[in-house]
Amino acid sequence: MSATLTTPEAKYSYLKTCLCQIKDLEAAAAVLNWDQTTLMPPGGVAARGRQIATLTQIAHEKLIDPTIGQILEDLRPYEESLPYDSPEAAIVRVARRDYDRSSRIPSEFMARLSEHQAATYEIWTKAKPANDFGAVRPYLEKMLDLSREMASFFPYEHVADPLIDSEDYGMSVATVRSLFAQLREKLVPIVEAITSCPPIDDSCLYQYFSKKRQVVFGRMVAERIGYNFQRGRQDESPHPFSTSFSVDDVRITTRIDENNLTEALFSTIHEAGHAMYEQGIAPELEGTPLAAGTSGGVHESQSRLWENIVGRSRGFWECFYPQLQGMFLRELGPVSIEKFYRAINKVAKSPIRTDADEVTYNLHVAIRFSLELAMLEGKLEVRDLPEAWNERYKSDLGILPANDSQGAMQDVHWFCGTVGGMFQSYTLGNLMGAQFYEKAIKINPEIPVAIERGNFNMLYHWLKENIYQHGRKYTAEEIIKEVTGAPLSVNPFIDYIRNKYAAIYQIEL
Amino acid sequence: MSATLTTPEAKYSYLKTCLCQIKDLEAAAAVLNWDQTTLMPPGGVAARGRQIATLTQIAHEKLIDPTIGQILEDLRPYEESLPYDSPEAAIVRVARRDYDRSSRIPSEFMARLSEHQAATYEIWTKAKPANDFGAVRPYLEKMLDLSREMASFFPYEHVADPLIDSEDYGMSVATVRSLFAQLREKLVPIVEAITSCPPIDDSCLYQYFSKKRQVVFGRMVAERIGYNFQRGRQDESPHPFSTSFSVDDVRITTRIDENNLTEALFSTIHEAGHAMYEQGIAPELEGTPLAAGTSGGVHESQSRLWENIVGRSRGFWECFYPQLQGMFLRELGPVSIEKFYRAINKVAKSPIRTDADEVTYNLHVAIRFSLELAMLEGKLEVRDLPEAWNERYKSDLGILPANDSQGAMQDVHWFCGTVGGMFQSYTLGNLMGAQFYEKAIKINPEIPVAIERGNFNMLYHWLKENIYQHGRKYTAEEIIKEVTGAPLSVNPFIDYIRNKYAAIYQIEL
Repeated sequence: MSATLTTPEAKYSYLKTCLCQIKDLEAAAAVLNWDQTTLMPPGGVAARGRQIATLTQIAHEKLIDPTIGQILEDLRPYEESLPYDSPEAAIVRVARRDYDRSSRIPSEFMARLSEHQAATYEIWTKAKPANDFGAVRPYLEKMLDLSREMASFFPYEHVADPLIDSEDYGMSVATVRSLFAQLREKLVPIVEAITSCPPIDDSCLYQYFSKKRQVVFGRMVAERIGYNFQRGRQDESPHPFSTSFSVDDVRITTRIDENNLTEALFSTIHEAGHAMYEQGIAPELEGTPLAAGTSGGVHESQSRLWENIVGRSRGFWECFYPQLQGMFLRELGPVSIEKFYRAINKVAKSPIRTDADEVTYNLHVAIRFSLELAMLEGKLEVRDLPEAWNERYKSDLGILPANDSQGAMQDVHWFCGTVGGMFQSYTLGNLMGAQFYEKAIKINPEIPVAIERGNFNMLYHWLKENIYQHGRKYTAEEIIKEVTGAPLSVNPFIDYIRNKYAAIYQIEL
Repeated sequence: MSATLTTPEAKYSYLKTCLCQIKDLEAAAAVLNWDQTTLMPPGGVAARGRQIATLTQIAHEKLIDPTIGQILEDLRPYEESLPYDSPEAAIVRVARRDYDRSSRIPSEFMARLSEHQAATYEIWTKAKPANDFGAVRPYLEKMLDLSREMASFFPYEHVADPLIDSEDYGMSVATVRSLFAQLREKLVPIVEAITSCPPIDDSCLYQYFSKKRQVVFGRMVAERIGYNFQRGRQDESPHPFSTSFSVDDVRITTRIDENNLTEALFSTIHEAGHAMYEQGIAPELEGTPLAAGTSGGVHESQSRLWENIVGRSRGFWECFYPQLQGMFLRELGPVSIEKFYRAINKVAKSPIRTDADEVTYNLHVAIRFSLELAMLEGKLEVRDLPEAWNERYKSDLGILPANDSQGAMQDVHWFCGTVGGMFQSYTLGNLMGAQFYEKAIKINPEIPVAIERGNFNMLYHWLKENIYQHGRKYTAEEIIKEVTGAPLSVNPFIDYIRNKYAAIYQIEL
């Protein structure tokens, strides 16, 4: 650089080229990770961990190159001369945030973390079905150390703050704790009221549903709501996820249980929701740091809005239930839509987060959030985690997980990411999703009727216009304020839950 | 580096780390390419081309880093102090060869080439089925320019020499032309003698064979001969290929035609042959520049040895034909093994190289070799290629391709690699394969009987010991000399053809 980069435009252009290289390296790592999780032969594990670590390390080295730092400094006047929402200003702004964050983390640490994540994930995929917590324990202990080491590169009030800020920019332990407290206060009586009612019979969901037909139906639903298979594909993996290789190649995975209709169905809608967000990013942002969801919370708001607010609504099944019945005539022929609708919305104190209903879901997240804080704070040892997990499930949800596979090893997050910083996004997403949807139907009151008639475009279009297209141009906070006119609040979610479940359970909430 | 790297050991260790990073980047590019060719949604094309180009460029920049050049110079005494066949000496030797070659090619050229290759491949996959040579023409013209530009970075006698040397180190237009001339002289009378005989009826191969069963059978055969599915997998792609992401993850692809039993079957054995070579590399070479096949020719010697010398032998089908008959009872029940054996070895003047029998195969290659030389020399324009192709097929094989899809667009090579430097490997491979096999059965005369009895391990083991395990430790020339005790010659191949086909056609050859 240097000599030739005299104008701000030349510097900006050079910066953009470097950032695109970094994006390409990250995309390559994502492809290698997707491959590892869906299709890779077992022999590939060792080299794959090393390869992903190399790509991550090189991307990181390129980002923290002091030349980038200098250019970002030099471009301050250029950035300020441009409108806040111009792509150029946003690219510089977001690149600076990424640079400031990443330049604190040594490259060799990133390589170590990435390698350990790959190894731990691989162990977890074997240890979980074998219910062997002992096998993952040393890996999780090292993961906890690495998570603390990650935090140590930043100033913080709480050790988890830098981890949370990384996923949900602007959030902290204090904010999230307060939201959980408000939620808890309102949710606990609702859960108690509902679970005092006679339980819903949801046995219709637990018959034999052939894998092949489940895949066909899930694919059809994903496509109808707006997921584009020309710019994505669906495969199987032990834990469903979505991943983006470019705005035009955003993939989803699912997990199919032939004795449980809800597993593949709702995970497909959930992941399609994530993927529609990424596919909906404006094409001109491709290859820039803006081409991604803006935060974990906003991402989850989209997956859970589509999965729950839409996918578990009465109107949605007015549209799709006849087709589902047609595909599983023997199993669902005798089941009325009302019975089916109630079954997929059954509220129960259950052990598995991903199977949990919308009402209890955030209580599951709260358990994980407080356990990971306790581990990070050094108040809970990894060896005591299984017991602590079980105790919390007993006290908060009144149930005891059958084993560690359904307990402390249930979720992939601690075994592939960091301990801390990830789970809060689910609850933030639930709150944001309800707040966005409340606004969407205020602006377009005909959305629910459109959904009933199989027109998902009205909602999709509103979300794309207001959220998807911007990618990371605005922060979560900015989007929520701009789109809903109010800061993040637990109220729209609680209102949504009260209205929906009062009707389903025929009680006052 | 510098200050800390004072000892040769420290320099070697630093070099090895850099080379492993480069290998990882190349492996990542290979994964992205495999994904693009087998599974990627159509939308992914544009970004994928860019991503592969970025990885290739960074790998190239890292290899040609002057620090690497300096270390390689510094390590000369260290290398000379070690035995020639120690991994350390071999790594330095091969790294120096790669460095010398790559440092001549500018990084920006590599990026341009790689991007154009991806774009051209994508066009070709559409233009070939549409028989639209016009669509690929401008791409092929640019590919020809890029191929010449590639050669221009090297000193050469013939413009194709650097391209050939890149795939088949030590070979040149002069050597290859001479081998083709010797082959042609001996093959033409053999082809004439055989095609004067009454043609073999091979209609038994062109019935309906269900895709599913073909896949099951091909997979079983690949596994039995030694391809390890725990360290590989098989998918479908428009043009079958094998690709290595590490010595423990080597994948193959196939193409299935439900009306042609030979397509998937022999392409599977062929690609398994390539993959067994890469899977058989000594584990301690993983992540080093030695962890690859030593040349295009030696690679083809393994694919074609397994496909033809083994896979089209009478003994091989003594072992497998009962199983194949069992899977396709209606289609093959009435077909005797002798009839089947003759059918899969039918010699005919036909338009498609990959479907060609062993006897005429090298004549197909000779056509491509001379056409690409003519294009590179400027004696043949791309726009005249389809006509030139057809004329050569008419004069050399007495047939006229039905269209350009079966003519000039038949093979992927010019549309994904370079024009020049690739086809000669097939014929070199045929010659080497026959020479290796002749030696293998001289050392272990029981190999043919073992194969008949379904024991492929004796041959596999011999090949692994003598060829596979070494990777790039020895050059093709060194391996041929060391293993067979003689330089490369057309004689073992000609002897093999004469003996086999004299028996099949009951004539003197």
